[in-house]
Amino acid sequence: MEPWLIAPISAIISILAGLYFYRYVDKQDSGTDRMKEISLAIKEGARAFLKREYTILTVFVLVVGSLVGVFLPIPFWTNANPLENLTLSLSYFFGAFLSALAGYFGMDIATRANAKAAYAARGGLNKAFPIGFRGGAVMGLAVVGFSLLGISIVYAITRNPGAVLGFSFGASALALFAKAGGGIYTKTADISADLVGKVELGIPEDDPRNPAVIADNVGDNVGDVAGMGADLADSYIASITAVMILGAAIGLMQLEIGLVFAGLGIIASIIGALTLRIGAKGNPGKALNMGTYATTIIFLILTFAVSYYLGYDLRLWGAALTGLTAGIVIGVTSDYFTSGDKNPVMKTAESSKTGSATTIITGFSYGLQSVFPPLLGIGVASAIAFYLAGVFGIALAALGMLSIVGLVISNDAYGPIVDNSRGIAEQAGLGDEVIRITDELDAAGNTAKAITKGFAIGAAGLTVIALLAAFQEIATSAGQAVVFDVMNPLVLMGALIGVAMPALFSALLMLGVGRNAERMISEIRRQFREIPGLREGKEGVKPDYARCVDIATTGALRELLPASVVTIAVTLAVGFVGGIPALGGYLAGSIFSGLLLALLMSNSGGLWDNAKKLIETGVHGGKGSDAHKAAVVGDTVGDPFKDTAGPSLNTMITVMSLVASIFAVLIVQYNLLGMLGF
Amino acid sequence: MEPWLIAPISAIISILAGLYFYRYVDKQDSGTDRMKEISLAIKEGARAFLKREYTILTVFVLVVGSLVGVFLPIPFWTNANPLENLTLSLSYFFGAFLSALAGYFGMDIATRANAKAAYAARGGLNKAFPIGFRGGAVMGLAVVGFSLLGISIVYAITRNPGAVLGFSFGASALALFAKAGGGIYTKTADISADLVGKVELGIPEDDPRNPAVIADNVGDNVGDVAGMGADLADSYIASITAVMILGAAIGLMQLEIGLVFAGLGIIASIIGALTLRIGAKGNPGKALNMGTYATTIIFLILTFAVSYYLGYDLRLWGAALTGLTAGIVIGVTSDYFTSGDKNPVMKTAESSKTGSATTIITGFSYGLQSVFPPLLGIGVASAIAFYLAGVFGIALAALGMLSIVGLVISNDAYGPIVDNSRGIAEQAGLGDEVIRITDELDAAGNTAKAITKGFAIGAAGLTVIALLAAFQEIATSAGQAVVFDVMNPLVLMGALIGVAMPALFSALLMLGVGRNAERMISEIRRQFREIPGLREGKEGVKPDYARCVDIATTGALRELLPASVVTIAVTLAVGFVGGIPALGGYLAGSIFSGLLLALLMSNSGGLWDNAKKLIETGVHGGKGSDAHKAAVVGDTVGDPFKDTAGPSLNTMITVMSLVASIFAVLIVQYNLLGMLGF
Repeated sequence: MEPWLIAPISAIISILAGLYFYRYVDKQDSGTDRMKEISLAIKEGARAFLKREYTILTVFVLVVGSLVGVFLPIPFWTNANPLENLTLSLSYFFGAFLSALAGYFGMDIATRANAKAAYAARGGLNKAFPIGFRGGAVMGLAVVGFSLLGISIVYAITRNPGAVLGFSFGASALALFAKAGGGIYTKTADISADLVGKVELGIPEDDPRNPAVIADNVGDNVGDVAGMGADLADSYIASITAVMILGAAIGLMQLEIGLVFAGLGIIASIIGALTLRIGAKGNPGKALNMGTYATTIIFLILTFAVSYYLGYDLRLWGAALTGLTAGIVIGVTSDYFTSGDKNPVMKTAESSKTGSATTIITGFSYGLQSVFPPLLGIGVASAIAFYLAGVFGIALAALGMLSIVGLVISNDAYGPIVDNSRGIAEQAGLGDEVIRITDELDAAGNTAKAITKGFAIGAAGLTVIALLAAFQEIATSAGQAVVFDVMNPLVLMGALIGVAMPALFSALLMLGVGRNAERMISEIRRQFREIPGLREGKEGVKPDYARCVDIATTGALRELLPASVVTIAVTLAVGFVGGIPALGGYLAGSIFSGLLLALLMSNSGGLWDNAKKLIETGVHGGKGSDAHKAAVVGDTVGDPFKDTAGPSLNTMITVMSLVASIFAVLIVQYNLLGMLGF
Repeated sequence: MEPWLIAPISAIISILAGLYFYRYVDKQDSGTDRMKEISLAIKEGARAFLKREYTILTVFVLVVGSLVGVFLPIPFWTNANPLENLTLSLSYFFGAFLSALAGYFGMDIATRANAKAAYAARGGLNKAFPIGFRGGAVMGLAVVGFSLLGISIVYAITRNPGAVLGFSFGASALALFAKAGGGIYTKTADISADLVGKVELGIPEDDPRNPAVIADNVGDNVGDVAGMGADLADSYIASITAVMILGAAIGLMQLEIGLVFAGLGIIASIIGALTLRIGAKGNPGKALNMGTYATTIIFLILTFAVSYYLGYDLRLWGAALTGLTAGIVIGVTSDYFTSGDKNPVMKTAESSKTGSATTIITGFSYGLQSVFPPLLGIGVASAIAFYLAGVFGIALAALGMLSIVGLVISNDAYGPIVDNSRGIAEQAGLGDEVIRITDELDAAGNTAKAITKGFAIGAAGLTVIALLAAFQEIATSAGQAVVFDVMNPLVLMGALIGVAMPALFSALLMLGVGRNAERMISEIRRQFREIPGLREGKEGVKPDYARCVDIATTGALRELLPASVVTIAVTLAVGFVGGIPALGGYLAGSIFSGLLLALLMSNSGGLWDNAKKLIETGVHGGKGSDAHKAAVVGDTVGDPFKDTAGPSLNTMITVMSLVASIFAVLIVQYNLLGMLGF
């Protein structure tokens, strides 16, 4: 058997394990009629979002995929082998399709598991926890399974890493929409629901009279389940692609080692997910972390054994180990800066006593500090990986970090499920004890989420560095060997433009949230005005939830479009004007500032959120105090930071890197400054 | 006559012109006794700050200068020519001394001109304006005069650009303290005075009972006159140094052309300052801008003529022209993003209607957008300059941008002078018409300030790029020719660490403001508690202003120290561990993120300030409305952004670059990874 076949085999096992968890969750009791009703409304909202999103995306993907087929890797009429164009185009469609499919399954089960976990919480923590976790694991295992199966199929048919690049680009395009679009969606709904419901009308949060309440509940699933899943899948696929492209330049073993390691990572994740237990008196946060550590160790043992057995250079294994270690270090840093019992959150909560301005300044300052350890970690890890195996080692480090992504996504998707459980428990009146239990489940989800975000950014960082190397490799193969020397004026110019791009992209997303919220607010006001009896809560009168979901969805995708178009257009403009050196510098610059801004925004956002929660436990005056009001401002500022702009930057820089790689051959041939003789 | 002698001659003329303006301002009437009293108190406070600052700095400078003498460029006991160590050390002291002297003169006249301009405003705008402007011009002309004279003396004695590097490092060390220390000082005083006075006790702003009122008034002078002057002088000297070091590698003409161009720039600035007129019905903002344009054109004509006459390659002139053009483009961008009649400020003001969180999000988003044009401008300018004359061209572009800095500093120092005039006019009861006139003067100052800040950041950007080239040149001369290839693992690791440094530095400064304000607040409260009759405003009872000034000063310098030490220590650690490649990457990374954060913070801070002012003109409910309260939060967040952290980053990255260059020879010989054989 060829060793790389472990990849499709593991992928199929992963999908089967996902199905097993799906059935496990599915057969649990969904609880009372009221609970089913709420859960169904969330599910319908999420489906409405996906339907709308996929409708728009189909057009986008068809257009881009056709352009890929016509022009890439070089225009088909100049290509001696035009079949190459067709293959690339089909791989692109395939990547986009599989990514969409995984998102659909994951969101579907997440929106069912919420009520079931809430209902099970009546029997205690250890009844409810497995439902939440396994609901998340469906998403995690489906994403990695579909991703790796897709890559394997493309590779089996074409034996060409270039085609895998097309697959990766397809998945990335989907991810950009899912993550950034979901991010705009979730914050639009959140802000609008609060502003009209709580502030203007004084009705409680999650009140069913509020037309935006379902849109708001849907938001968690859209942003955190589908969005984060697509983001990590995007990095996962991209890191395997980078390993294959860089490996292909060395030899067949190096080309295929990524598939082998990824396959073993899936097996480790499945074992980790299956054996994850909370115990009778267990702590859910601890259980999730133990699962991560167990999976890491299993992965290291498996890869070491297989490397030894197949005679791989153990330095390659060392490179993967380096990345994995860095991933955990970064996760721990995020945890430190965003945990309620650590200094940054406590100091920020304290500064809320002197008003919202000091809350913002203090939280932002800690956010700025928080970028140092992860950047140092990524820097050191890539240097070590390089010494072990050259740029190929950096790609392996990225892959190592992402190898356990099946479990990481599972942990992450657990968060919004149990978050929804808490909301359902409260709305359906399941009593204080159940709410206490779901609170505990939710708290563990928040910690897991903070770690996942740090992990996602770190992984994206290593991946895009590897993609930069892959880009260089493709350009070299196409006849232009370029060193990305910072003192080369084209590289420098590209780098300075690249530095500005993540800032511009974040700004467009955040301003988009503001505009979208304005539209949604008028719709909510309109419903309260025009639907008789709604405001008074008359029996049988229901708001038009779907209309709000639709507005949030359409608006989110509409606001996302300029940001996405700018990203791709500027990347191509830099490439076709300045050529490979400018584009290389541009990618490097965007990696630097993208990592900086992503870490800053994610961590400061998480920190403000938890500072507010800390005050709500009663310190500094507790809920309703002036300190609490100031902390709420911090939290509101942090929301688009951490849920819209910050994490979308991962996907953005990955997309830019893939666009650069996929256009590299064309750019080598046609670039303005090159043609002018510079 | 040797052409470069134009530098010392112009420098002396500049100092004489400064003296002429000094006498002009000095002989104006300082007004009523009450006005003299207020002006004197501000002056005494400013002197107290300088005294305290210079006391601490003397120790710091002595320690660092001695270390320089012992260890640099290589340890004196290993140096065949130990006189080189002594020269470097003396140049360092000389640079620090002259920088301190220029700061002293500038601040002295600024704190006299304020009352005089206020008193002259009784006679109309065109009586008051020249006093404000010429007061600022004393600072501007003194700074460039002392700087260029110092460089000329060092060069005349040593004929060695290496010694000029020592001079530049000395001036930079001073600038770091002046700018970042002044930034912490001014915000400490501002926040503390407001919080106890306005919020706790409900007494008006600028009330003489408030023990912090003088400290607050002093703050403007400390931060904007002395700080910004030192910052621009630092870049100015550094850019000339970079031209000399890079030019020395080419030939004597290239080595000296920087001095020639700088000399001509001073002459242009003097002519611009002398001919600047407001006219009978003039607009002060327009007058300042016309002065800048006139100076630019005079500079370009002079340098073109001299280049032609001396037979310089006109491409060198073109490189300087490129930099100057970029400087103006960047200034115009800052103006767009921070002007009250443009979209960003108007939209931010509008978003204040929905609360402080949306004010922050909108303003921050526009701040993020505002980084794009300047980074593009710097990128394109450096690429063009490079094509004209290689990396030497980039240094000339930086110098070109900074050539008219004499006038730029004059315009900038005008701001705090007329700002103080307005305060004095109000406190001394000069009537509504005078206040209206000083308001108009002040508004022009704010616009000039926004442009200056953009200009300062752009200039620092080009300068540090040139310094990076100079660093590479020094390392090459010392036997280690290195290409700063982003895919070199050491360069990459350095770059990632470098990216984090400006974030860490800003965080330390901003958290320092918070801690310092806490100390000051307790002192203010203590005075109100312990001085009988103070709170009631009993006749003859005065607070202890000097104590507050002292606390703000000591605290600012104390908080600055860790940030400065971290900056220098990490730079040296990266160098002595990773060697020249890591240090080169580190500098590049810090340039990228330093520019990004500096532009973001300065522009968003200016934008929030003007959004608040826009609302105060009566839109969206005007003063006291909810929108105004939200805008005040934005302004308070923006204060440490734009006055503490943002602009200090210029100085920080310049200091890092100079430290790297000055240690380069030593690092080539001793670096851990190099010695371990990597």
